Parts: sequence; C-alpha cells; structure tokens
Amino acid sequence: MRKGVMRPGHVQLRVLDIDAAVKHYTELMGLIEMDRDPQGRVYLKAWTEVDKYSLVLRAAEEPGMDFMGFKCISEEVLDNLRAGLVAFGCEVEDIPAGDLQDCGRRVRFVAPTGHNFELFASKKQTGKWGVNNRNPEAWPRELGGMRATRFDHCLLYGPNLAETYELFRDVLGFDLAEQVLTPEGKRVAQFLTVSTKAHDVAFIEHPEPKFHHASFYLDNWTDVLRAADLISMTDTSIDIGPTRHGLTHGQTIYFFDPSGNRNEVFAGGDYHYPDHEPVTWDAESLGKAIFYHDRVLNERFLTVLT
Amino acid sequence: MRKGVMRPGHVQLRVLDIDAAVKHYTELMGLIEMDRDPQGRVYLKAWTEVDKYSLVLRAAEEPGMDFMGFKCISEEVLDNLRAGLVAFGCEVEDIPAGDLQDCGRRVRFVAPTGHNFELFASKKQTGKWGVNNRNPEAWPRELGGMRATRFDHCLLYGPNLAETYELFRDVLGFDLAEQVLTPEGKRVAQFLTVSTKAHDVAFIEHPEPKFHHASFYLDNWTDVLRAADLISMTDTSIDIGPTRHGLTHGQTIYFFDPSGNRNEVFAGGDYHYPDHEPVTWDAESLGKAIFYHDRVLNERFLTVLT
Amino acid sequence: MRKGVMRPGHVQLRVLDIDAAVKHYTELMGLIEMDRDPQGRVYLKAWTEVDKYSLVLRAAEEPGMDFMGFKCISEEVLDNLRAGLVAFGCEVEDIPAGDLQDCGRRVRFVAPTGHNFELFASKKQTGKWGVNNRNPEAWPRELGGMRATRFDHCLLYGPNLAETYELFRDVLGFDLAEQVLTPEGKRVAQFLTVSTKAHDVAFIEHPEPKFHHASFYLDNWTDVLRAADLISMTDTSIDIGPTRHGLTHGQTIYFFDPSGNRNEVFAGGDYHYPDHEPVTWDAESLGKAIFYHDRVLNERFLTVLT
Amino acid sequence: MRKGVMRPGHVQLRVLDIDAAVKHYTELMGLIEMDRDPQGRVYLKAWTEVDKYSLVLRAAEEPGMDFMGFKCISEEVLDNLRAGLVAFGCEVEDIPAGDLQDCGRRVRFVAPTGHNFELFASKKQTGKWGVNNRNPEAWPRELGGMRATRFDHCLLYGPNLAETYELFRDVLGFDLAEQVLTPEGKRVAQFLTVSTKAHDVAFIEHPEPKFHHASFYLDNWTDVLRAADLISMTDTSIDIGPTRHGLTHGQTIYFFDPSGNRNEVFAGGDYHYPDHEPVTWDAESLGKAIFYHDRVLNERFLTVLT
Repeated sequence: MRKGVMRPGHVQLRVLDIDAAVKHYTELMGLIEMDRDPQGRVYLKAWTEVDKYSLVLRAAEEPGMDFMGFKCISEEVLDNLRAGLVAFGCEVEDIPAGDLQDCGRRVRFVAPTGHNFELFASKKQTGKWGVNNRNPEAWPRELGGMRATRFDHCLLYGPNLAETYELFRDVLGFDLAEQVLTPEGKRVAQFLTVSTKAHDVAFIEHPEPKFHHASFYLDNWTDVLRAADLISMTDTSIDIGPTRHGLTHGQTIYFFDPSGNRNEVFAGGDYHYPDHEPVTWDAESLGKAIFYHDRVLNERFLTVLT
Repeated sequence: MRKGVMRPGHVQLRVLDIDAAVKHYTELMGLIEMDRDPQGRVYLKAWTEVDKYSLVLRAAEEPGMDFMGFKCISEEVLDNLRAGLVAFGCEVEDIPAGDLQDCGRRVRFVAPTGHNFELFASKKQTGKWGVNNRNPEAWPRELGGMRATRFDHCLLYGPNLAETYELFRDVLGFDLAEQVLTPEGKRVAQFLTVSTKAHDVAFIEHPEPKFHHASFYLDNWTDVLRAADLISMTDTSIDIGPTRHGLTHGQTIYFFDPSGNRNEVFAGGDYHYPDHEPVTWDAESLGKAIFYHDRVLNERFLTVLT
Repeated sequence: MRKGVMRPGHVQLRVLDIDAAVKHYTELMGLIEMDRDPQGRVYLKAWTEVDKYSLVLRAAEEPGMDFMGFKCISEEVLDNLRAGLVAFGCEVEDIPAGDLQDCGRRVRFVAPTGHNFELFASKKQTGKWGVNNRNPEAWPRELGGMRATRFDHCLLYGPNLAETYELFRDVLGFDLAEQVLTPEGKRVAQFLTVSTKAHDVAFIEHPEPKFHHASFYLDNWTDVLRAADLISMTDTSIDIGPTRHGLTHGQTIYFFDPSGNRNEVFAGGDYHYPDHEPVTWDAESLGKAIFYHDRVLNERFLTVLT
Repeated sequence: MRKGVMRPGHVQLRVLDIDAAVKHYTELMGLIEMDRDPQGRVYLKAWTEVDKYSLVLRAAEEPGMDFMGFKCISEEVLDNLRAGLVAFGCEVEDIPAGDLQDCGRRVRFVAPTGHNFELFASKKQTGKWGVNNRNPEAWPRELGGMRATRFDHCLLYGPNLAETYELFRDVLGFDLAEQVLTPEGKRVAQFLTVSTKAHDVAFIEHPEPKFHHASFYLDNWTDVLRAADLISMTDTSIDIGPTRHGLTHGQTIYFFDPSGNRNEVFAGGDYHYPDHEPVTWDAESLGKAIFYHDRVLNERFLTVLT
C-alpha cells in the first residue's frame, strides 16, 4: 500500500440475463444484493466487506468485464495517483461521484493490456453483513450458498505485460509476487499485489485484452468442497477443481456464471511482503504452475472473454 | 456380517518393479512394510489395522490383481462358507496355512465375474502400528506420506454381475448398498458391503474380468488435499481428483502406482445398514454418479487392467 | 450385529419446556421435526437416517432419559432376543405397536445398571431427509444449525457394569470396544458396539442409574467448530470442547439442552471389528482418556441426571 | 505499512534450559534451528519466512520476553522512524549490526507499556525453508510437529495503553484493529496491525509490563487439532484450546514451553484495512471476547511473566 492503493474495491461484469445472474451470485455464491440503480445495474457484496458493494452486474449483449476498481486511502491520494497516471501516459477519464451508487468520483484509466481500471477513495460503508461491529459473532447464521467472504482479484489476459507491471509498480505501488518466465526470460504471467495477499490482480500474456475470471475468497478447503458440491447440485457449469494452484498455492475451483463469465472461489494461498523476491515459475512448468495436481492445462483454461 | 465375513482382509497386486512399488506404497501412501517372503513378496499394512498386513505385492510381468481376500470371524464360519461356495457352484481351491506369511488356510474361489477371491479366518495380529493398545495416543507421530489408515475395498470390472451379487449376498452375507441401473432396469454397477461401510467390494459390468483400483481410507478431506499435493511433489501419475463420488459420496483421488495399478485414497462416504434400501443411480447419470463435480467420466476411468 | 441387533434406533428424553427443546434440537442441532403424538411427544430425526425418527422428546418435571431403543433386523430376531432377555433374568415389558408413532412392538427391559432399554424391529422408513434415494445429492441444501447426521450413542452412569456387559454381549451381540480398568483390574467404564462404530452405548460405574449424554454424529472437525460457534451465538450452555476424547479418539463438544440434558456432537473416532482386542485405558489416566487435550476431568463431567 | 514498518521480524525469549527449549520449538512446534551465536543464543525460523530467523532463544534465570523487533522496508525508513521515536520522547538505543547474527543495526526503544521493542531493516534472507523460490512445491515434506508457518504477533500486558497506541499509530504507522472498552469508554485492550493481519502486536492493560504469549500461525483448523494432539502426546503443559477467540475470531490453542513461556498457535482470523473502523468489544463481554466458546476467562489466562 506504499502509494495509498488499498485493495480491489469492485468489478463490474456484463451479464446476459440479470435475474439469472443475481440468482447465481446470491443463492449459489452467497453474495448479498445491496442495491439496484436506475440503469438496472445490481450491486452485491461479500459478507466480510465493510464497503457497500464489490460486484456490479450490468445487463448486456456480451459477457465480460467492464472495469475493475481499486480503493485508495484518501481523496488526496487519489489526486496524486491521477497525476501519476497522466504522467505515465495513460488515458484518464474522470467519472463523477454517484455514477456508481454511493460511490465517490472515480479515475478511470486504460492499462497497457487494454483493460479498464479505475481508482476511487470513497464508498458508503455499511459494515460487515450480518454481524455487528461491537461484540461481533464469528459469522452470520443467515449466510447461504458458498459463503464467499470477499472479492479477491481478477485474472486478465492481454498484451504489454512489461509496461503494465511498470504502471502498477511505479504509479500504483503494487509488487510483483509471482511470475512465469519463458526460457528466454520473457515474463508471460505476472501476479501483482498491493497488500500482503498473493495477488490483487494478475495478468497473462495474450494478443488481445480478455477477461479470464473474477475471484472470491473462501474460509478454507472444506468450503471449497462445499462450493464444488453446490456447483453440482445446481447444475452449474464447472471449469476445473477442487484443486490447488501452483502459483500462489491457493486451493481453488473454477466455474461459470449463467452468462459464461468464469468465477473462482478459493482458500489459502501464500503471502507476500515488499522485501520478498518474486516467486518464479518456468513456462515449461506452466501446467503445474496453474493446476498443481493435474500438472496440465485443461483446454477450457484458455477460453477467455472480451 | 450376518454370515460371519467381517471385512476385506488383503489384496495381492502384481507389480513390475518391487522396489519402486514398495517405495510408492510406503513413502507416498504411508503404508508400513511388515514382512517379505522367500518368493520375494512384500507384505504391508495401514496403521490402524490390527492384522499383520493387508497388501501383498508380487513382482510380475504384468500389473493387476491376483486376488482379494476377506477375513471371517472363525474357522467354523470358514468351513460353512466353503460349503456354501461349493453348493453355489464355485470352483474352490484350498490353500494351506503359511502360503501367505502368518496367515491361516485360505479358501480360494472364482466369482462369476472371473476374479479370484478368498476367505480366511486367521492372520497374525500385530496390533495397530505405532500406538499401544493401552492408553493409545491419537495417531503415530512417525507416520509419513498420505497416512492411509486402512485397506478399504476394490473396484473390479467383469461380466455376470447378477450371479456375482447372488453369490455375495446369499453365500457370503453382503448387502447391495448402491447400484447403477440402465433404463431397462439392468444393473451395470453394484457396490456391496458386508459391514456398514459404503462398499467392501464393487463391480462394474464389463465383458472381461479386469482390475480397476484398490482403495485405502484417509481421515478427512484435508488429507485428500495432502494426498493430491504429495502426488504432485513425487511426480506420480494422477487419474482424477481431488473430487467427490456421487456413488457413496466419498471424497476421493485416483492415481497410479509405478506399475500402472490404479490406487484410490478417499475419506467420508455414506453408511449402510441391512434395512436400508439400496441407493440407485440411473445409467444416464453415470458421469455424476462416478465423479460428482465434473459430471462426466474422464477417459482414463475406463482404463482397466487384466 | 451377530445377534441381529443393528443400531441405536431412538432415545426418549424428558424436557421441561417442549417448545424450547424443539427449538434447540431443530434450529441449533439441525434435527428435523417429523411428528407429534396425542401425548404431546415430539419426534425428530437426523438427516441421514432412513427411519422416521431417532429422538423423542417428552415434557416432564425433570430432565433425563426415559429409554434408549435398539433396532433389530427382523421380528423373528426380536422374538429370539426377547427369549434371551428373559433367560438372562431381565424384567421384560411388551409395548404394543403404535405406542410410539409409526413404530412396531417394542420389548422393554431394565439393564443391570438400572436403565430402561428396548428392542424393536419395525419403524416407518421415510428415507434420508432432503435427498432422494435415486441419484442422491451429497447433502440437503436446506439443512441448518449443526447439521447433525445421525443419533449415535448414549453414555450412561450406573452400577453392575460386569453384568450389563454380559447381557449386552451374550444376549444382544455387542462387543467391548474400549474399557477403563482400575489398578486392581476392575472395569469402571465400558464402551460397547454392535457394529463397527467405536460405541453404540457406553457405561461408567456409578452407584445410581444416571444419564450422562445423548450423542449425535457430525461429518468432520470443521463441523465441530461450527457447532461450537453456534453454541456461543445462541448462548447455549457449554460443557467442554471442541476437543478430542482419548477413549475412541472422537473429536467432540459437550453442551446442554435448555432442560439440562447433556448433548454431544462429535466426528471421527476409531472403528472396531469383532476380532479386535478391546482398547484399555488405565483409571489413573482417566483425565486423558476422557479429554485427550486437557488431560483432566472438568467438574461438570461428573454432573449427571436421573 | 504506511510508515514503512512491514511486520514482526523477531522476538527474543528467555528460557531456563536451552536444550529443552530448542527441542520444544523444533520438534513440537516445527520451527527450524538456523544458527547459534557465541553467547549461546539459538536462532529459529518458521518455514514460510524468507528472513533467516524470527525467534531467538536466550538462556536465563527467568523466562519472559527480552524484546520484539519489527522489520522496516529500508535503512532510510529506519532513520526516519528513529527520529520519530526520539521526537515522541522514547528512550532509544542503537544496537550495531551483528549483535544479532546476520542482522543489521537495530533501533531499540521502550514503549510506554514498559516493553522493549526494536526496529531493523536488514536481515540475511535465506528464503523459505524446504521449498525453492523457482517452481516451489506447496510445502516441505520434511516438516514435523505442528508445522507452524510464521511468527505472527505477541500479546503483552502493561500500563499506558493510550500513549502506546499513539506511539504505534503516529510514529510507526500501526492501526487499531480491535479494542476492548470499559463502560466508561476506557480502552483496556488494543490489537494493533501494521498490515492487514488481525494483529501484529496486542496489549492488555496491566500495572506492570508483562509477557503474555508469542504466537505462531498455522494453516488451518485441522492443524490446530494436530497441535492439540501433539501437546498431549508430548505431555506439554496446555493452557486452553482448541477454541476460537472472539477478538480477531482466530482458531487457537495456548500452551507453555518448558520454561513457562506461553505459546499460541492459531489459524484463520479477521483482516483489517486502514479504512476499517476498529472492532469493539465491551469489557463486560471480555470472557467471550477472549474465549469465544467458553465465554469465561480461565484462571491461567491471567498468569503472565515479567
């Protein structure tokens, strides 16, 4: 957080059928619907988050990610970071407060990978869902489905990984926690963190900007099994898992929302401090780096959305 | 146990390289080598078993199962069961005490599926490994690898499932815990139990007698993850998992020993009492019945050994 | 099951306030209310049980256990066992079918410890709750609270342990799975099983017949934590746990229903086959035998009900 | 980390018998001995830590904590923080590089609670123990005992909590994650974090500076059970657990090293970002705040060392 960026604050996903999507993210994944806006967008949160929402669903013709936003520690920081983005050469767009419900102004920029990101400093805080901030119980009894605890990160495919890393490192204060290198030393995957988490955003080299998945955190490996069982009970399309990643060593399962957006829920995973060397995986070991147990990529892993 | 058969007592597997096999079953799976015989066979056990061994490895040109043996409650019971086998029309072979180290006489028979089974009533008891029978600790600190707790069952492919069920039910006192039925009502898979376990032996319809896997029990789902991690760390060939079965609902992983014999380690699973109706799966749902999360059979599942 | 007794089929508990009790056993423990009878008794089951109920609550002035019943494999077996009980010298009472809702005739007897037990062979089967018997899902999504899976056993305090063991062994076909012996070799605790479970009923030496606890099974250690959390969230009176027993090595927590009846929920635990030597604990190690981690008895453990 | 302090870097404990202590911290807790110095001090680390050590044991007449050290992001930061400490009015002592093996210069200061803390920026990095930084396996197979993953925090008793919080907040950049308030609003416990962990150091109001415990992190609740089992197997003195804390909601067990120093191992626990309101517990609920399941303090919790 050395530049004042704290965490992934929200992601806006496009969905083909808003009702089916809301059912998926609430009843299956255990997120909580918090609000809707006049445009018809639906705002959801995971129960441990203190901000009002972290996931925004927008009805559209095609699935995919509209943007991912990071929360900063103050409006002053936001001004500084905006200046940094401009100096770096990013296209920057100022989105006024209220465009997203109960959210302050946002600074939108396009990363060298081609993805839309944004920074913001203010969002209404509603506190953790289902527990008080005074003498809080361990968890809310009313929670259903997979009981996802928080929005964790996105994995994105795109070009210009080196420039994107520079931007996130020098302007936004992220660190390189893990990477995949080719035999020639080219970085083809980079896992970036702005905290001590294994990743707050990750990129894999690809000619076009694509969306791979949005990931939510679970408490433990038993909840990964519970998630897998629920995926089966609800006839939800599964990608792969339960398994472990080599990169970050998280315990994971991938599946799809009704629109075809890939979701991950995972538990565990390594931690990273600023004085840690990045962990390096060789591209020859990519199968094991991605899926530690199978040690091969399944075909579907390569399927990504615009 | 209504006819006096108690449990799977041992399985003899053929392996191509005895040293590689012993390393696999001890260092990886956590079994304990207990003895060797003049023929070069190696005897192993899992730590919670009180009998001296439950797995016998024999060096051979081809992998597969030589025979699976069930332990009976007494020599008198063994005599009665032998008579029942003969009356049923089985080929029966009497194998004298000592042919397997520290094991009493065995009654060998060929099931209608074509597999060799045997019954025995006496085997040297060495007690649980690594803990005393007086004020026993919870588990032995010296245990390594996957920490398999006991030999649990075999899954076998072969013809004549109906006759085989009759034999196991009427002569040996097994119950049908679960089954897979075709739309025409033909039973193409049967999971048989002689205790309250989900299965002590299971059969899937196939033109030839084949060996699918020998299965060992783990304490819990966390140990299934540990098993999966160890499979990766040791570059062991994996089949599928961690996942859950639909049939029995056990939490499982399949992998191969260095000779190509498929092993399972699993945890959990349903229980069955004699007054329970069998659980039925429709053949149309076979994918989900076998692999509850993926809901499709992987190709390798169909690979079986002579 | 060598005499045809299969399992603990039900326990009838006395409660001071039937509504408070039903709330406790359903909302907290996750049992399902199945029926009420004209006397006002409430019938409940745990979700994996195929019989209609396993717990009967009766409003009374004092808490405690009325009786514990074991299910037998057939009416013929029941006749034989009745004769055996009479021959052993037990007081036997014949209770007609329908006295308990949807239950066949019961043979009531008083064990030498002074407790009321009964045998029965017929009870309406409603199947597992919340899942089908055809292509069954892994667990019912509607399940709440602790998600207890089945009634497991009772622990009772009373005199005449030796005679009681004889009765359960010789007449009913139970085995001694574990015991506590004084330095003089007197058995002061006995854990008896009629299946391969670590215990189906257990007794501790005491001058008067008392009720210690009724125990229900959980899936795993994570569910023991969940149970503990729920106990705290609901301000339920806790006895001890989460912890492990030395005897049986089960992972456990003890607490009280609103009337003061002690409940246990537990997971794991050893298994026992008829050819296993009983596990022996020395009375000097009783603290560790009962509570493996603390290695001392808490005062409350000694509190028992009439 | 807004002032450049990253994490607890080490704690030096006094032990009565160095050999017994090393055995305890290595064989039981699973730490790794990394070095000894001419004074006879022993240096240990937990396996996920990249720095050479995090625990230093010193033979002494009385148990307790000598000092706790925090690692800073650079030598420049260390200079700035030193100036801040002096400005705040702390006694500051400069300890030259090499006083602790392979550690750079340290800035020692006395907190208003009376405890010795220190800051440093340089320590030899040996990398995670037992795994490579290139294509790393999930965990080292050679790990024994409780498999503690990292030194996490200390809980200290002492006076002047308000001033201590000011110092840690304003000079060192810590946040108040959780607190206990009396009905009059006096803060009698404060849990401070410099990252997103639930606490990096915690204080409870007490007239004298005392040491309550040093805490190490475990992977999960199953490892807490494993720790509890190992405590029993090794006849180690237990304090309390397995249980959950209300404060931080971590899953925990407390026990004592052979010298009487209290250790904690724990898993899970809440997270804290700088924009989170502190969680508040009422002093009337202190029992539940400390031990969430029992909801009372055990007597031993109040036992602390100089």
